[in-house]
Amino acid sequence: MAYHLLQRDQAGAGELAHAIMTALATLKHCQLCNTFTESDICEICADENRTHEQLCVVEMPTDLLMVEHTLAYHGLYFVLMGRLSPLDGIGPKDIAFSRLLERASDGIVKEVILSTNFTVEGEATAHYLAEMLRARGLTVSRIARGLPVGGELEHADPSTLAQALVERRTLTG
Amino acid sequence: MAYHLLQRDQAGAGELAHAIMTALATLKHCQLCNTFTESDICEICADENRTHEQLCVVEMPTDLLMVEHTLAYHGLYFVLMGRLSPLDGIGPKDIAFSRLLERASDGIVKEVILSTNFTVEGEATAHYLAEMLRARGLTVSRIARGLPVGGELEHADPSTLAQALVERRTLTG
Ligand SMILES: [Zn+2]
Ligand SMILES: [Zn+2]
Repeated sequence: MAYHLLQRDQAGAGELAHAIMTALATLKHCQLCNTFTESDICEICADENRTHEQLCVVEMPTDLLMVEHTLAYHGLYFVLMGRLSPLDGIGPKDIAFSRLLERASDGIVKEVILSTNFTVEGEATAHYLAEMLRARGLTVSRIARGLPVGGELEHADPSTLAQALVERRTLTG
Repeated sequence: MAYHLLQRDQAGAGELAHAIMTALATLKHCQLCNTFTESDICEICADENRTHEQLCVVEMPTDLLMVEHTLAYHGLYFVLMGRLSPLDGIGPKDIAFSRLLERASDGIVKEVILSTNFTVEGEATAHYLAEMLRARGLTVSRIARGLPVGGELEHADPSTLAQALVERRTLTG
C-alpha cells in the first residue's frame, strides 16, 4: 500500500503518515477494559447505561467491535490483547491475565462471559481463565457452539453438529 | 442424468432403472422411527446397544444420516418426513406429528431432542412440538445454536454471534 501511495499520490501519502503518527502518539489502552482508546477510560466503560455486572472477555479490540455490532450485549468488556499460545511461547504473563483477574474482582462484576475464539488457542485461554475466575467465586460462562442461525443439519460439519447435540439446551417453556 | 445415461450407456441406464424400481417396491418406513428401511423395523431401532431413553427428532432421513455421521449420538430417532410450512399449506396433519407423540409416550423415552433445522420452518416445527411434548411430561431439548467448532468471532455473522451470547453456558468445572 505504501508503495502504491508513493507512486500515485505523494501528498496523500504524507497525510496518511501524519494521521498514523498522531494515532500512535495518542493511542492508549482503556484503564478498565484494555481496548484501544484516546482517553483514559473508553466510551463503553464510561457509559452509565450499560450493566456493570457482566464482563465479556475477548481476545482483540476487533472482537469487541464484533460483539458490539450484534446489539445484543449491554454489559462491559475486557480485552486480553492476545491469547495463550504455548507453541509460540505466549503464556499468561504475556497477555493481560492479572489485570483481568483484578478487574473482575471489583465486587460489582458478577458474571464473566468468556468470548475468546473457538480455536485451539482461544479454547485453552478460556479453560485457563475459567479456573482462575471460578476460584475467585465468580460466575463464568462461555459463548455457545452449535449451528448458525438459519443453519441446516445437512450443511453442518460433523464436529459442529456433535457439539450442537452435546450442548443442547433443555426447553422450559 | 437420465438423458446423459440414455446417450452414453444404455445398458447402465437399464440397470439403474431396475435398481430404482426394486428400491421403490421394497422401500418402507420404519414402524418405530419412520425413516426409510427395507424391513419393518430399521437397524438403528433394532440395535439393543443404543439407549432407548433419548429420541432425536429430525426432518428427513438425510438429517438422521448427518447425526449418525457425528458418532456422538447413541439414542434413537424419529423422522418427521417434513416440517411445518403454513405458507405451503403443510400443517401438523401432513407430517408425522401424531405418530411422534404416540412414539414418545411409550413410557421408556425420557428426553426428546428436537433437531429440526434452524430455518423458519424448522424453528416453527420445534416450537410446536416442544409444547405438545412438554404437555405430556417429557423433557424436551433443542440442539444448540452458536459459533462453529474452530470458529472465530471475526468470521461469525452478527445474528449467530448474538445467539451464541444469549445461549451461553455457565461453566461448572
Ligand atoms: Zn474500556
Ligand atoms: Zn427405525
